Amino acid sequence: MSDIRTSELKDPVDVAEYLFRRLKEVGVQSVHGLPGDYNLVALDYIPKVGLNWVGNVNELNAGYAADGYARVKGISAIVTTFGVGELSAVNALAGAYSEYVPVVHIVGCPSTISQRSGMLLHHTLGNGDFHVFSNMSRQISCATSLLNDPHEAATLIDHAIQECYIQSRPVYISLPSDMVQKKVEGERLKTPLDLEFPPNEPEKEDYVVDVVLRALHAAKNPIILVDACAIRHRALEETHELISKSGIPTFVAPMGKGAVNETLPNYGGVYAGDGSNAGVRERVESSDLVLSIGAIKSDFNTAGFTYRVSQLRTIDFHSNYIRVRYSEYPGVRMNGVLRKVTQKMGKLNIEAGPVPSNTIPQAERNSKDPTITQAWFWPRLGQWLQASDVVITETGTANFGIWETRFPKDVTAISQVLWGSIGYATGACQGAALAAKELGLRRTILFTGDGSFQLTAQEVSTMLRNKLNPIIFVICNEGYTIERYIHGWDAPYNDVQTWRYKDLPAAFGAKEGEAKTYQVKTKEEVERLFEDKEFADSDALRFVEIYMPKEDAPVALKMTAEASAKNNARLE
Amino acid sequence: MSDIRTSELKDPVDVAEYLFRRLKEVGVQSVHGLPGDYNLVALDYIPKVGLNWVGNVNELNAGYAADGYARVKGISAIVTTFGVGELSAVNALAGAYSEYVPVVHIVGCPSTISQRSGMLLHHTLGNGDFHVFSNMSRQISCATSLLNDPHEAATLIDHAIQECYIQSRPVYISLPSDMVQKKVEGERLKTPLDLEFPPNEPEKEDYVVDVVLRALHAAKNPIILVDACAIRHRALEETHELISKSGIPTFVAPMGKGAVNETLPNYGGVYAGDGSNAGVRERVESSDLVLSIGAIKSDFNTAGFTYRVSQLRTIDFHSNYIRVRYSEYPGVRMNGVLRKVTQKMGKLNIEAGPVPSNTIPQAERNSKDPTITQAWFWPRLGQWLQASDVVITETGTANFGIWETRFPKDVTAISQVLWGSIGYATGACQGAALAAKELGLRRTILFTGDGSFQLTAQEVSTMLRNKLNPIIFVICNEGYTIERYIHGWDAPYNDVQTWRYKDLPAAFGAKEGEAKTYQVKTKEEVERLFEDKEFADSDALRFVEIYMPKEDAPVALKMTAEASAKNNARLE
Repeated sequence: MSDIRTSELKDPVDVAEYLFRRLKEVGVQSVHGLPGDYNLVALDYIPKVGLNWVGNVNELNAGYAADGYARVKGISAIVTTFGVGELSAVNALAGAYSEYVPVVHIVGCPSTISQRSGMLLHHTLGNGDFHVFSNMSRQISCATSLLNDPHEAATLIDHAIQECYIQSRPVYISLPSDMVQKKVEGERLKTPLDLEFPPNEPEKEDYVVDVVLRALHAAKNPIILVDACAIRHRALEETHELISKSGIPTFVAPMGKGAVNETLPNYGGVYAGDGSNAGVRERVESSDLVLSIGAIKSDFNTAGFTYRVSQLRTIDFHSNYIRVRYSEYPGVRMNGVLRKVTQKMGKLNIEAGPVPSNTIPQAERNSKDPTITQAWFWPRLGQWLQASDVVITETGTANFGIWETRFPKDVTAISQVLWGSIGYATGACQGAALAAKELGLRRTILFTGDGSFQLTAQEVSTMLRNKLNPIIFVICNEGYTIERYIHGWDAPYNDVQTWRYKDLPAAFGAKEGEAKTYQVKTKEEVERLFEDKEFADSDALRFVEIYMPKEDAPVALKMTAEASAKNNARLE
Repeated sequence: MSDIRTSELKDPVDVAEYLFRRLKEVGVQSVHGLPGDYNLVALDYIPKVGLNWVGNVNELNAGYAADGYARVKGISAIVTTFGVGELSAVNALAGAYSEYVPVVHIVGCPSTISQRSGMLLHHTLGNGDFHVFSNMSRQISCATSLLNDPHEAATLIDHAIQECYIQSRPVYISLPSDMVQKKVEGERLKTPLDLEFPPNEPEKEDYVVDVVLRALHAAKNPIILVDACAIRHRALEETHELISKSGIPTFVAPMGKGAVNETLPNYGGVYAGDGSNAGVRERVESSDLVLSIGAIKSDFNTAGFTYRVSQLRTIDFHSNYIRVRYSEYPGVRMNGVLRKVTQKMGKLNIEAGPVPSNTIPQAERNSKDPTITQAWFWPRLGQWLQASDVVITETGTANFGIWETRFPKDVTAISQVLWGSIGYATGACQGAALAAKELGLRRTILFTGDGSFQLTAQEVSTMLRNKLNPIIFVICNEGYTIERYIHGWDAPYNDVQTWRYKDLPAAFGAKEGEAKTYQVKTKEEVERLFEDKEFADSDALRFVEIYMPKEDAPVALKMTAEASAKNNARLE
């Protein structure tokens, strides 16, 4: 390796500056992470290029936060230090890989000289192998750029950021300490990165559109089913056009929650097999053509594989292939196909579907019991939510409960249904709230359980440090309810230590007026809270302890947990 | 794979029961970890075989705690769940691998049937690959046992636990949910696992002993230098014999702190090149023969590679080889060699060395400034410590400061000098305090910094849940001091949010009398605290905010940080 002679460069720019300017260009305004001795010099460039440093409390939380930020803003970045820092974040990045979230992971690492001489440095395994950790991350990254040579550094940075955005998955960039200030060609920055999806081959695309249209015109009662990949692979605009122009009854899978304007007259609710909203299963499963957009048919997204939609009546739209019944069309991206189908579809047979509301179920309305139940709470929440809210639900009662909440317009919903790492939601809330603030959105609302909250509770400190004002609901129900439903109903391992949750914002340093805390134990107290104008809109962080019974859970959770328990125990 | 027919077994025992009974046999009394849907059924066996379930708040903390427990008790176990759980713990296990700590990591994973059929389950990457995570952990495990077949399960369990203990490093055991209750031969349990180190080949060992003795007898002023691997590879008994019988001046490297009885008349203090205790560098570097036992010459263990001991005057004792000057003897373990050298050494030339004390440095004694300084605190602490204390110091000012503390007898010192993951110490404190309690030791004392404490603060909750009573000192000095000394003296990225630290035990649910909190800001307040009998000995957890200046650090830290900064920036 040799340096580039500065005289050869038209506009010499330091490697770290180049990297952060590229990140800014693609929409990153705040960088998550923690300082560590191998990344300190690089961090100096963050304010220099006009970016904001978040300063998280630990790397796992920072990873979750970066994931949350990317789901709201489109892409994010996290900086960690070699070994100790990056490995603490690896669960969060595996989650982003699993759920198609574009996060640029930058790891400050020992100098190329130390690496070549195999020095016995701290933060190593003591065996002179400096590639162990990047090799681990390779498994959960769609590109890995080791910046060991100034001649290729700019190219590798551009490549990583492009892949991150286009494939919508994490990438790994290692930045040795002696590379931070090496010079690269700054002229390159005048040409923005190309983040457009490569267009489909026109003849092939037209062919597929024809096949789809023929099936669609023959259908008597088609429906649309929208799932996670429509969001994650950026096909929402095309999907919205199709839904609103066609009038076809439209449903979402749990992971697709938030993808569709739920106030449209043809929005019908959540489809998840046996866990579906009232009336939805019947309508979806009796349809003779399902336009399935971006499906991920995982266990928790299908209430334990209780989908009953035949492939013979399905057209699948994906980011890298289309499938019409059993005919596959690889290498065709959904966006172009959906656009043309919408343009050319003409008149279709439409048979109306159910219309969800946030009506409280009859049994709950009749009940005199003041206890806050899951069945009562989630539709009631739907009446209180506002357009453009960002709503985060933790794996557990919250992310199953939210199936029963009909959203206002433009709600961004975040949950981690496939990866399902508890603790995720609190970290993600910090990143989402920051991204929302940058976009001028007013409210970010978190629902987490007490057990889950304990894993990453101190991210509330980062929210305070960054002057964020999310509304946090901690559902106090004495432990890991979702696990009780799978196994160990009374087992002590499903209990958690009882915290005084609402004392935490103050302990984490909230100053006068920075945080308001609440405790609600009855339906009436929830009603009062939801009527409180100051609670609904405030510059302060709002922190609510909401008490629900330990043994209560949304119906969909009960079914999914039962299916999981059976699957775990299945012997052949 | 087929089941073993129960009729073929003399004493059929479930796989999970076999596993936990083996762990109990080798000395594990408490199992760390978190429940997760793929490990729940296995957890039922923990109380069944008479083990205690800890129930940590998150997996990284659980991993650190298991590391701390193993350092006190000799081995430990942690249970996590597939993907999300195990990856959160991976940094802690990499640390245990780096620093030779024996931790058995048991991962509850999807059933062998789900794995074979590549089901799209939660906690997966959604690609049907169930080996990604175990392959990551392979890099940081000295054995990996995937229990996919009942015929080999017992053998694989025995192998993993033996390797863990003998190699003193983590092992990885995956336990699919459908294997938990499969039957294996319980008769095997009647024969305890063989955990003895394989003896050296006698002729070879005698040969090496002769070479060592010849060098030792020729030496005019030999010294002994004890380091981490003497502890971690279980050569302390042989080391103690040599030190006490020979009277040779003995020093410890920072990672060897606690290995030697520091009240012995021939104990001379800490050697770490330029960071050594007063008078030590001169004595060590003028010696004509250094008996170096279990050295790990990493940057942070040598104050930035400032060792000045020639290999021409060194005999290295290791777990798998001996090196006399440049002659290497591979495959010879130190234990047998040290034992024979002690038996046969006879009379030696001894030239006395320095004797460390806990005397406060003159400048500090003369100062009228009430501020608690690093130079004042650490020797003062040494006057207060008691025999058999377990002392944990976090990477930062604490684990450099402790070089200036002379310990009473039988102190167990824990710090993570090589891996150096901040946040480690608070997690490790929980495990160490639990292990100490099981051994009937009265006091576990933690020193951590405010920045580091924030990463894993909620492990205090696990201490309370398990009725542990450590003494916790949080050094309040406004952020990441060690990093300031490396780079970014005033940089906001080295600041942290100011917490009300001592409000945390109550927020984490401490009941009346379970926790006492203190705040000390002057030397006089420290004096009063150290005189307080109730503080020194209590069943309650004690939590101290101790304030030291942001810009103050132990001298050894300053030197090491400077060397690190230079190394990071070195351009050729």
